[in-house]
Amino acid sequence: MEAHEKTDLVLRTFRCLIADLCHQFGCGHPGSAMGMAAIGVALWKYVMKYSPSNPDFFNRDRFVLSNGHACLFQYAFLHLVGYKQMTWEQLLSYHSVSYTSITPGHPEIEIDGVEVTTGPLGQGVANAVGLAMASKNLGATYNRDGYDVVNNMTWCMIGDACLQEGVGMESFQLAGHWKLNNLCVIYDRNEITCDGSVDICSSDDVNAKMRAVGWNVLEVADGNHDVDSIVKALVQARASKDKPTFINIRTVIGVGSQVAGDAKAHGADLGEKDVAHVKQTYGMDPEKTFVVSDEVYDYFREAVHRGQQLEKDWSQLVSNYSREHPELAAEFDKRVKGEFLDDWTKLIPKLDDLPTEDTPSRKSAGTALQPIAEKCRNVLVGTADLTPSVNMAWKGKVDFQNPDLRTACGINGDYSGRYIHWGIREHAMASASNGMAAFNKGTFLPVTSSFFMFYIYAAPGVRMGALQNLQVIHIATHDSIGTGEDGPTHQPIELAALYRAMPNFHYIRPADSEEAAGAVIAAINATETPSMISVSRQKVPQYPQHSSRAGVQKGAYVFLEEKDADVTLIGVGAEMRFAVEAREALVAKGLKARIVSFPCQRIFEAQSREYKRSVLGTAPRVVIEAYSPNGWERYADAGYSMHSFGQSLTGNVVYERFNYNGEKIAVKVKELVEDVRRDGVGSLRGEFRDMNDYERDVQFAAYHKKH
Amino acid sequence: MEAHEKTDLVLRTFRCLIADLCHQFGCGHPGSAMGMAAIGVALWKYVMKYSPSNPDFFNRDRFVLSNGHACLFQYAFLHLVGYKQMTWEQLLSYHSVSYTSITPGHPEIEIDGVEVTTGPLGQGVANAVGLAMASKNLGATYNRDGYDVVNNMTWCMIGDACLQEGVGMESFQLAGHWKLNNLCVIYDRNEITCDGSVDICSSDDVNAKMRAVGWNVLEVADGNHDVDSIVKALVQARASKDKPTFINIRTVIGVGSQVAGDAKAHGADLGEKDVAHVKQTYGMDPEKTFVVSDEVYDYFREAVHRGQQLEKDWSQLVSNYSREHPELAAEFDKRVKGEFLDDWTKLIPKLDDLPTEDTPSRKSAGTALQPIAEKCRNVLVGTADLTPSVNMAWKGKVDFQNPDLRTACGINGDYSGRYIHWGIREHAMASASNGMAAFNKGTFLPVTSSFFMFYIYAAPGVRMGALQNLQVIHIATHDSIGTGEDGPTHQPIELAALYRAMPNFHYIRPADSEEAAGAVIAAINATETPSMISVSRQKVPQYPQHSSRAGVQKGAYVFLEEKDADVTLIGVGAEMRFAVEAREALVAKGLKARIVSFPCQRIFEAQSREYKRSVLGTAPRVVIEAYSPNGWERYADAGYSMHSFGQSLTGNVVYERFNYNGEKIAVKVKELVEDVRRDGVGSLRGEFRDMNDYERDVQFAAYHKKH
Repeated sequence: MEAHEKTDLVLRTFRCLIADLCHQFGCGHPGSAMGMAAIGVALWKYVMKYSPSNPDFFNRDRFVLSNGHACLFQYAFLHLVGYKQMTWEQLLSYHSVSYTSITPGHPEIEIDGVEVTTGPLGQGVANAVGLAMASKNLGATYNRDGYDVVNNMTWCMIGDACLQEGVGMESFQLAGHWKLNNLCVIYDRNEITCDGSVDICSSDDVNAKMRAVGWNVLEVADGNHDVDSIVKALVQARASKDKPTFINIRTVIGVGSQVAGDAKAHGADLGEKDVAHVKQTYGMDPEKTFVVSDEVYDYFREAVHRGQQLEKDWSQLVSNYSREHPELAAEFDKRVKGEFLDDWTKLIPKLDDLPTEDTPSRKSAGTALQPIAEKCRNVLVGTADLTPSVNMAWKGKVDFQNPDLRTACGINGDYSGRYIHWGIREHAMASASNGMAAFNKGTFLPVTSSFFMFYIYAAPGVRMGALQNLQVIHIATHDSIGTGEDGPTHQPIELAALYRAMPNFHYIRPADSEEAAGAVIAAINATETPSMISVSRQKVPQYPQHSSRAGVQKGAYVFLEEKDADVTLIGVGAEMRFAVEAREALVAKGLKARIVSFPCQRIFEAQSREYKRSVLGTAPRVVIEAYSPNGWERYADAGYSMHSFGQSLTGNVVYERFNYNGEKIAVKVKELVEDVRRDGVGSLRGEFRDMNDYERDVQFAAYHKKH
Repeated sequence: MEAHEKTDLVLRTFRCLIADLCHQFGCGHPGSAMGMAAIGVALWKYVMKYSPSNPDFFNRDRFVLSNGHACLFQYAFLHLVGYKQMTWEQLLSYHSVSYTSITPGHPEIEIDGVEVTTGPLGQGVANAVGLAMASKNLGATYNRDGYDVVNNMTWCMIGDACLQEGVGMESFQLAGHWKLNNLCVIYDRNEITCDGSVDICSSDDVNAKMRAVGWNVLEVADGNHDVDSIVKALVQARASKDKPTFINIRTVIGVGSQVAGDAKAHGADLGEKDVAHVKQTYGMDPEKTFVVSDEVYDYFREAVHRGQQLEKDWSQLVSNYSREHPELAAEFDKRVKGEFLDDWTKLIPKLDDLPTEDTPSRKSAGTALQPIAEKCRNVLVGTADLTPSVNMAWKGKVDFQNPDLRTACGINGDYSGRYIHWGIREHAMASASNGMAAFNKGTFLPVTSSFFMFYIYAAPGVRMGALQNLQVIHIATHDSIGTGEDGPTHQPIELAALYRAMPNFHYIRPADSEEAAGAVIAAINATETPSMISVSRQKVPQYPQHSSRAGVQKGAYVFLEEKDADVTLIGVGAEMRFAVEAREALVAKGLKARIVSFPCQRIFEAQSREYKRSVLGTAPRVVIEAYSPNGWERYADAGYSMHSFGQSLTGNVVYERFNYNGEKIAVKVKELVEDVRRDGVGSLRGEFRDMNDYERDVQFAAYHKKH
C-alpha cells in the first residue's frame, strides 16, 4: 500500500471502531472522536513526542483533551500506538459495567497517557496553559547552551465549548500574554454543539479573537482527511518562536454517518442502521464489528521504538549535562524525582519567632510560606491581582514573564520567575495551577492566592485538583465577615460549606500565627490533596500559650482545657477571639467553658474515634463562626453562626452588627447550659440550636428594605 | 461662567469630594471614581434618561457599575443629580460605622438609582447583558409603530478586570451574537490593577478583541477632561443600529493626586498630604473639606425636571398606546406591575395526570414548568447548551435571537423569543438572568438550565441572585451519582452543600413527578428568593400514594408513617428509592421504618419547631443521599452518604458500586438500631455516624491507583 492508502485505511478503521464502541452498549460520544481521527493520526503518528512504554517519560509532549467527552479518540489512539495498559479488552470496556475499566466517560489522570482529567469544559485549556508554563519555567531554570533538558510541547484539543467557557478565554489571554510558544491549541471546528449549529449562540470571528489575544493562527480546511496539512500546521506550531499557536481545523462531526454534521452525532449511539452505514461509507464490512487489521497496527508500530529512542537520547543528554553542569543537574534530578530542593521544615518559623501582638492571619500565613517559596524552586506562587493583600510576595521575587516584556510599572521578569500575576482570573489561576502540578508529581508545588470569596469563581478548578489528587495550596484571605467594608459581596458566608464538603480537600482556618504555621505544614505534607488556608484581613489575637501547630495536624485539638466544664466552645479561625471572650464572660456567670480549636474538619475526620471523643468532650458543644453553620452540626449541639448575608461595615463593627461579642454569646450559652441541666444532655440530640437569634427578623427586614 | 468652565468646576469639585470621602475614615477606593468623573458628567448630565424623583421609572436607562469598588462615583452623582435618598449625610456615611448607611463598599440593589448589586468583577457586564435583553424582549413584544413603549439603553461601566474575568468575555460574546444595540459598555481604561500596570498580566488588543466578538468600538483619548468627546461617543452608542457599543476611554486613576496613574491610587485613602495636593491641583482650598458649591448643584439641577418630563411623556405615550392597542396595553400594564399574565397555578399538572411508571425527574420538572413557560410571557427559559437533556423546551418555542440571524441548523428566532441558547456559558447564563430579573421586579421570571455539576461554574452568579432577592429558577439536571457514565467530573458529590448553605436560596430535590410539581410551585411562589430544582437524568419510581406537592412547600414531610417505628429514614430526591427499598429490607429483619421525604432544607428551617419535631420524630434518623453528608447532621443521627468522588459507570451500576441498595443499607441501619437499644437514643448526640463504610479503604485505593 502507498502511504496515503495506509493512512486512509487507518482513518476508515478508526471511525468504524468508534461507531462500534458507542454501539455496543448503546451510548457514548461518537461524533467528535470520528471527526477528529485525522488530527489524531497527525499527532500520534507524526508529530507528538512520547513513549508508550514509559508514559511518564519526563520530556514527553503533553497532550490534553479539553473536549473530554471525545475520550474514545484518545483511548483508541493510546491503544493503537502501544500503551500497554490500554489493552483491547480495556478499550472495549468503554461504558461497560466493569468496575476496573480505564475507559471512563471522560479521560482521567490515572490512565497511562492521560495527563489530566478533563470533561468540565474549558478546564483542559487552563491545564494546558499550566503544563506549558511548567515546561517554560523548567527550561528557563535548567536548560543551558546545547542542553535543552526540558523542551516539550503541550498540545491541547478543544471543541467549540472551550471557546465559549469563560475559563477558556481567561487562559487564552494568559498564554498570549506570556507568549507560550510551546503551547498549541487544536480547534476541532465541527461547528456543532448539543443544541444545534454553533451559530445559534456564537457569532465570533474566532481567528480574529485569538489573534487579538496574542496567538498565532493557522487554518486547515479539510480536517477530515488532510493529514498532511494538519501535520504541517502542527510542525509550524512547534517551530513558533514567540507565540502560542491556534490551529483552526474544519471537521465534520460524525463524518461518514447519516447524521454527519448534525448535533445528533454528538452524544448518542448512532444506532445499528447508521453504524452499518458508516461501514459502507468507509468500504468496511457492515456485518463485522471491531475490526482492526494488522496493517493498522503496523502503521503505528514504530511509535514504541521511536519513544524508546527519545528516552535514550534524552537520558544521554541529561547524562552529558550532568558532567558539564553537575550542580544544576543534581538539582534538576531532584525536580525530576519530584523532591523538594531544600529541607522546608527548617524554614517554618518557630513559635518563639512569632508575633505576640495582634496580627492579621494573612500576614502570618505569608510569614510561614514566603521563606519556603523563596528558597524552594518547586514552589510557584501566583495571585489573582491581589499582591498587596495576600502577603505572598517575597523580597526579590522574580515574576514569571516573557523576558522581552517591558511593563509600564517597571516590574518585569522571565520564564524562570516563580511569582505569577494571573490578573483578575481566579478560575484560570486554579485550573492552570492544576496543570503545573500535573506536569510531573512533585516537580511543582503551585500556590494560588486571592480573596476567599472569589474562590467561588475558582471552585470548578479547585474541585478538579481534589479529584485528581493534585497538590496545590490556595491562600484565601479576607475570610469571614471580618473582611468588613467591602460588604456582603465579599463576605463568604456559605462558601466554606462547599470546601468542607469537597472530597480530598483540606479547608484550613488557622486562628493565629502558630496555627498558620501549622496550616502551612499540613498543606505541604498533603502531597495527594489540595489545601486552602483561609485567613483574615483583620488583626487577630495571638495565643502562644494555647495554640498549637501540632494540633492543626489533627484538624482540631483542645485549646484550653477546663475540668468539669459546663460547655465546650469550638473556636474557628478569626472567630477564636469570640470563643475566648465568651469563656471569660461565662466565668462571670459562674460557668466553666473549655475551648477546642477546630481549623480543619476533614483532617479531624481522619483521626481515631478515641481522639475525636477526647477533643469534643461530653459537655454541650457550641461552635462560634461567622459562616453558615452547615456541617458543624456533626460536632456541635449549637452554633453561633450567620443566617443571612453580611453587611458593609468596618470589620469589628460588622461583627458587632451580627452580635459577635463575648457577652452576647455567653448569654445564649448560659441558656443552653441551663436547658441541658433541666433536660439532660441527651435532649440535644438532633435539635441543633441556632443561637445567634438576636433581632433576627429585624435584621433581615431592615437590611432588605430600602431605608 | 461659560459652560466648559462650569464643567471644569464640577470635575474639580467631584475629584476633591471623592478624595475627602476616602480620607475621612482613612479607607475606600478613590482612584477610579476620580478618574471617571468626566464620564459621570457625560452620563448623568447629558446622555442618560432617568428620573431622580422616581428611581423606578419603567423606561429609564439602566446604569450598571461593574467595577463596583468605584461606588463613590455612583453615589456622588446620585446625590448631585437629586436622588432624594442619597442625602449629603448618607454620602458622608461611606465607610462609616452606621448600620443604616446606604453607601456600602459596593453598590447594592436596595439603593435608589442602583440597578444591581455589583462588586465581584465581571458580574455587572453579565447583568447589563440581561438588562439589555429584557428591554429588547419587551420592545419586540409590546412596541408598535409609533409606540416605542420600551426603548431604554443599558450603560455599563467597566474597568480592566471585567475584560479579564471569564464571565465578562462570555457576556461580551453573547451581546455581540445577539446584536444588542441597546447596550453600551464604557471601558474606564486607566490601565491599572491592584498589582501594578495592567500590562503585567494582559497584552490583549482590546479593541480588536471586542470587534472580533461583534462589537462596535469607539475611542476617547482624553477621558479625564474631554466631556464633549465622551458625550459624542455615548450618543453614537445610543444610535447604533445593529451592534452593542464598546467605548474605550483613556483615563488616569487618581488623576490630580501624587499617585495618579499608580496602583496606589486604587484601594486606599490618599492620605492628608495628597488630599491637600489634589485640592491644590484643582485650585481648591486645601484647608476646606467636602466643598460642593451651589454652582455645582445648579449644574445638575435640571436633572429632576428633565426626569419628570420623561416620565410624563412616557405616560402619555402609554396612554395613547392603550387606546390604539387596548389588549396589548392591558398585558403590558401587567408586565409593568410585575404580575403574572395567566393564572399559572391552573397550568400545573394534577396528580392524576402524572405518570405512574418510572420517570426521570428532569422530565417531571419539564412537564410541570413547560406549560407555564409556554403561556406566560413573563417566563424566559434558557439553557447552557443542553436543550436535549433538560426538557425545558416547549413545542413551538421561539428562540431569543436577532431576527436577521440565519443559522446553519435552521432554528432562528427574534427578540420576542423566550427560549435562550446561552451556549456553554453557565456563569453568564446565571448572572445575565439576574439582570433580567432586576429589570423590574416580576416583569421577568428567568429560568436557567444545565447539568447540576456545572452550576459550580455558575455559582458566583447564582449567589448574587440570592444576595439581591432576585427570583430566578435554576433547573439542574443529572444530579447525584446516578448521572452515570459521564463519571466523577459530572457527579456533584459536594455541590449541594454549597447551595444548602447559601442564605436566601432554595435547593430543592424532588423525589418524583408529584414532588417535581411541588418544587415548581415552591419556586414560583418564592418571589424574593432564587430556587434550584435538582433533578435526575435517570428514571425514578413514582409514589402517588406517598409523595405530596403540599409537603414540598414545607421542605420536608412524613412520606410514610409507621407507628412505633424503630428508625426514621430520610429519603432525598432520586435516592428516595433506596429509602423505600431499605424499609422493605428492614421488615424482613423485624424492624419498622418510617420515611420522611426531605426535598429542601431551607424551606423546612422556616417551619415551626412543632412541625419540625413532628416530621423528624424521636426514633434514630438516617439520611440516605449520594452526596457528601455535610448539613444533614442537623437532622439525622447517621448518614448513608458519599465520602469520595464518584466513578464512570452506568447509573444503576454506579449506585451499586457505592453500595446503594436496600439490603446493604438495611444491614447498617439494623446495627444502628441495636446500638441505640443498648445505649439509649441519647448516645446518638454529636456522634454522627457515617454508615456507608463498606470497603471504604479498598474503594479509595482501587480507584486512585492505576490499574
